[in-house]
Amino acid sequence: MSFYVYLSGEIHTDWRDEIQQGAEAHGLDVVFTSAVTDHDASDAAGDHLGEESRQFWRDHKSSKVNAIRTRSLIEQSDLVVVRFGDKYKQWNAAFDAGYCAALSKPYVTLHDEDIVHPLKEVDAAAMAWTTSTEQVVEILRYVTRA
Amino acid sequence: MSFYVYLSGEIHTDWRDEIQQGAEAHGLDVVFTSAVTDHDASDAAGDHLGEESRQFWRDHKSSKVNAIRTRSLIEQSDLVVVRFGDKYKQWNAAFDAGYCAALSKPYVTLHDEDIVHPLKEVDAAAMAWTTSTEQVVEILRYVTRA
Amino acid sequence: MSFYVYLSGEIHTDWRDEIQQGAEAHGLDVVFTSAVTDHDASDAAGDHLGEESRQFWRDHKSSKVNAIRTRSLIEQSDLVVVRFGDKYKQWNAAFDAGYCAALSKPYVTLHDEDIVHPLKEVDAAAMAWTTSTEQVVEILRYVTRA
Amino acid sequence: MSFYVYLSGEIHTDWRDEIQQGAEAHGLDVVFTSAVTDHDASDAAGDHLGEESRQFWRDHKSSKVNAIRTRSLIEQSDLVVVRFGDKYKQWNAAFDAGYCAALSKPYVTLHDEDIVHPLKEVDAAAMAWTTSTEQVVEILRYVTRA
Amino acid sequence: MSFYVYLSGEIHTDWRDEIQQGAEAHGLDVVFTSAVTDHDASDAAGDHLGEESRQFWRDHKSSKVNAIRTRSLIEQSDLVVVRFGDKYKQWNAAFDAGYCAALSKPYVTLHDEDIVHPLKEVDAAAMAWTTSTEQVVEILRYVTRA
Amino acid sequence: MSFYVYLSGEIHTDWRDEIQQGAEAHGLDVVFTSAVTDHDASDAAGDHLGEESRQFWRDHKSSKVNAIRTRSLIEQSDLVVVRFGDKYKQWNAAFDAGYCAALSKPYVTLHDEDIVHPLKEVDAAAMAWTTSTEQVVEILRYVTRA
Amino acid sequence: MSFYVYLSGEIHTDWRDEIQQGAEAHGLDVVFTSAVTDHDASDAAGDHLGEESRQFWRDHKSSKVNAIRTRSLIEQSDLVVVRFGDKYKQWNAAFDAGYCAALSKPYVTLHDEDIVHPLKEVDAAAMAWTTSTEQVVEILRYVTRA
Amino acid sequence: MSFYVYLSGEIHTDWRDEIQQGAEAHGLDVVFTSAVTDHDASDAAGDHLGEESRQFWRDHKSSKVNAIRTRSLIEQSDLVVVRFGDKYKQWNAAFDAGYCAALSKPYVTLHDEDIVHPLKEVDAAAMAWTTSTEQVVEILRYVTRA
Repeated sequence: MSFYVYLSGEIHTDWRDEIQQGAEAHGLDVVFTSAVTDHDASDAAGDHLGEESRQFWRDHKSSKVNAIRTRSLIEQSDLVVVRFGDKYKQWNAAFDAGYCAALSKPYVTLHDEDIVHPLKEVDAAAMAWTTSTEQVVEILRYVTRA
Repeated sequence: MSFYVYLSGEIHTDWRDEIQQGAEAHGLDVVFTSAVTDHDASDAAGDHLGEESRQFWRDHKSSKVNAIRTRSLIEQSDLVVVRFGDKYKQWNAAFDAGYCAALSKPYVTLHDEDIVHPLKEVDAAAMAWTTSTEQVVEILRYVTRA
Repeated sequence: MSFYVYLSGEIHTDWRDEIQQGAEAHGLDVVFTSAVTDHDASDAAGDHLGEESRQFWRDHKSSKVNAIRTRSLIEQSDLVVVRFGDKYKQWNAAFDAGYCAALSKPYVTLHDEDIVHPLKEVDAAAMAWTTSTEQVVEILRYVTRA
Repeated sequence: MSFYVYLSGEIHTDWRDEIQQGAEAHGLDVVFTSAVTDHDASDAAGDHLGEESRQFWRDHKSSKVNAIRTRSLIEQSDLVVVRFGDKYKQWNAAFDAGYCAALSKPYVTLHDEDIVHPLKEVDAAAMAWTTSTEQVVEILRYVTRA
Repeated sequence: MSFYVYLSGEIHTDWRDEIQQGAEAHGLDVVFTSAVTDHDASDAAGDHLGEESRQFWRDHKSSKVNAIRTRSLIEQSDLVVVRFGDKYKQWNAAFDAGYCAALSKPYVTLHDEDIVHPLKEVDAAAMAWTTSTEQVVEILRYVTRA
Repeated sequence: MSFYVYLSGEIHTDWRDEIQQGAEAHGLDVVFTSAVTDHDASDAAGDHLGEESRQFWRDHKSSKVNAIRTRSLIEQSDLVVVRFGDKYKQWNAAFDAGYCAALSKPYVTLHDEDIVHPLKEVDAAAMAWTTSTEQVVEILRYVTRA
Repeated sequence: MSFYVYLSGEIHTDWRDEIQQGAEAHGLDVVFTSAVTDHDASDAAGDHLGEESRQFWRDHKSSKVNAIRTRSLIEQSDLVVVRFGDKYKQWNAAFDAGYCAALSKPYVTLHDEDIVHPLKEVDAAAMAWTTSTEQVVEILRYVTRA
Repeated sequence: MSFYVYLSGEIHTDWRDEIQQGAEAHGLDVVFTSAVTDHDASDAAGDHLGEESRQFWRDHKSSKVNAIRTRSLIEQSDLVVVRFGDKYKQWNAAFDAGYCAALSKPYVTLHDEDIVHPLKEVDAAAMAWTTSTEQVVEILRYVTRA
């Protein structure tokens, strides 16, 4: 059985690629999934359902279309990695973490030390706090060893 | 039966008081609960368990002691109000929202229009987006009417 | 312990009153709950959250405010009575029935014989099909006898 | 992993075929399922279990045989599409929507604008409201992109 | 908090009374519930919903009306006592036991030694096998002691 | 996806073979499972765990070893067929039916008309009552059609 | 609402009394529950069900009678305190901790520093590790403050 | 479908190998999983996440990394075998047993007769108590027979 890992959060750096390449380099049997990470496509995911005059409803529709994808993927995963970058609010990442916590779905966080305090509740329910993609890969290597 | 409302999020303004006073003014049979909102006490909730040299573990211990309280209260509530203020990251508020979403626990958000976009996933799973405590009180008045 | 009964569906006739009066006449320890049955108030439940130019979003907001109330009440009930009248689509009543079915929450239907065929899936998952409020009261009298 | 989509509701137009052809045209890895859509066969699904003198019991038996199939398929799906046409009551479609809502199974609706108001509760719990099969296909294309 | 005990099974001997009197004699804070134990009333529980020409449907309707009562009571109980007498099939008692087992609801059986073999699956999932009402009372006395 | 059917109950006639042959004759994609149906082997399933002086404990151990197998198979099935023959108590069959009912796992019963009354609670929660293996096969044929 | 605390584990020292007295001294609205802590009574809880020649079955019966009590109390609690003393194996305490973990029921451990290593899995899923009853009382004081 | 068996507990003897070889010798379609059984690697599983000055936090981090692996494997298994050896506390094994009990996941224990008394609660919720790896293999042979 493959090990399924959902990669949640920041979409402005290449942390997903780093983890996937690291897993590949170790020959791990891991399948990675995530939300659609093309920012513009994601924001426009509901546009084909009709134009909206208010930003709120445009966002609302796109978020729900995205949730169709992400809910299934999170629930099918064995582990979720939640990434908080140094920019943006990334409330969706914290939302995913809470979602996992309520489902008893194990997740690890990936963020720098300077945001340890505001992330304390998110980290408290996590299985690990990592600061580099190498550490995430090392966890994957460990939990999937024969 | 009383209606139980958990108030999650920002602890630096008096939005909780406003809602409670509004509910009282309307004579609503609503019981309000929340995390401990004394910021210093909350950060120090685990200090009596022994000193830590690293900030991460101090936060870790306090967050978990707080979670003992908040998990029970969220699960016993009929509605959760999640407040995002204009300062701080408030990832714990987004975390609570995700927790509610996974449990199918209804929640409403309370935040200004200027953060609609970063909160789109949180709002998408909410039962309402409110911008004032008066609107929250009005919802409580409506859902509890005889 | 009182027996909790949620009354779902048609809001244009006085079937709720008939059931409540029948229960009272028999001195039953039953607590009745329902959605807000004032049609105009129900349609306007979300209006205080801001005006909408599109009917869809006005309905959307009001439906969700109503759901805050109805979800809690359905989940707390011991039995749901779902009424289909001779007018209107009443898809919300069928929606409530499906919601109950998925939660294994017992429900009975109340409707005339001429709509037996289109309601066959809804009736198939019900604990009883009734055609009069007297029959509903009789069921309540029976299930709550000492 | 294929993406499983259950198509619920109206059986008198070819909307299912349109969606399936659209998905195929885009080369999507989607598996479509549905109730038996042959109307006469569906109504007669329980006839081999013995004749009934009352229409209610004939319907009852057939509905339950159909439910054996549909329950499994709904629970195994990643998304449910619920179609409301311009004829018939289609309470079974609303029932399926309520069933999905209680299970936190994502669903989208497919119906014309003129029935937005009576479907407001059903739409409120949906992940999207669509008005054409092209929109449904576009959602499928989006949520399954690599 | 009172301790809730649902008494399931045989309705032709006075085992329920014996347990209730025993609990009362010990001053236990136990609330006993059960299905309607008036055999004729139970068989006729659905008769007011309309006459049936076939025995199957008469039984079907009455069983479901009875289930409205029993499902709630079983789910609210802390312990279920399942009694198998020396007459009749009592498949409903075994059904209740299986229902409890699937819900992880603790139950004890009450039956003579000569039917140990056919009841082996039912006893295997029980918390205790008792042969007298005194033993049941003794269990209640023990589990509710201060 | 294959359709999984668990065959529960009577082990003294060849009803399982009839259903399997019927399904095969129709080329159905159905996988059948069941408890170990070799009566002596089933009764002795726990004997290798050590001799017991009391029949109760021998039965107890064997029943639990059998349950390891049956629980998994029931939970993995799409449909359970519960057979009541004309001999023996078959409380385990009624137990399985109750187990399915609590899990919302669809099941059909297979028994003669003369035991309709004692099986009324078991039939009331079933999706169908059948009296012949041909009817069961017909249901399988219907629910698995393309 | 009172806060319910189940006290699990060691029964040879007076840690339960210390916690209860501490809570009382602070005037906390906490209800404490536990297994029957009279060791001899606990070991003999099933003796009235008939003598056993093998120790295994005597233990088996008593453990299950005890479980009737403890399962209900654990599930009704807001917090479980799991105590590991310096004598005995106390596998039942670790069992209770695992039971809580699977149910997402918050628990804290109470044990000395010298057994930190063998308890690492138990502590990893706990909300706090305490080494004195004063610390437990302090947690209760904190989580129940107005 | 293969039968999945998770092997929990003692890591200082070769009981896992014996069971796997026994299953292989019988040609059973069983897939075995377990925690990482290399003791040093297991204790160091979190070391790459940063050094800790306190033993408690080192253990804490490693235990959680291990739990990422074990939770998934336990939940995916059809049966768990929990081994208690003659050395060490093995509280993690009892923890796993409690975890299984709460999830209604069937498990069997494997331990000598001299620790029957301290393991009585763990054994009481098990499907079998075994004393040799041959008995475990025999159970696997039985529950997987065609």
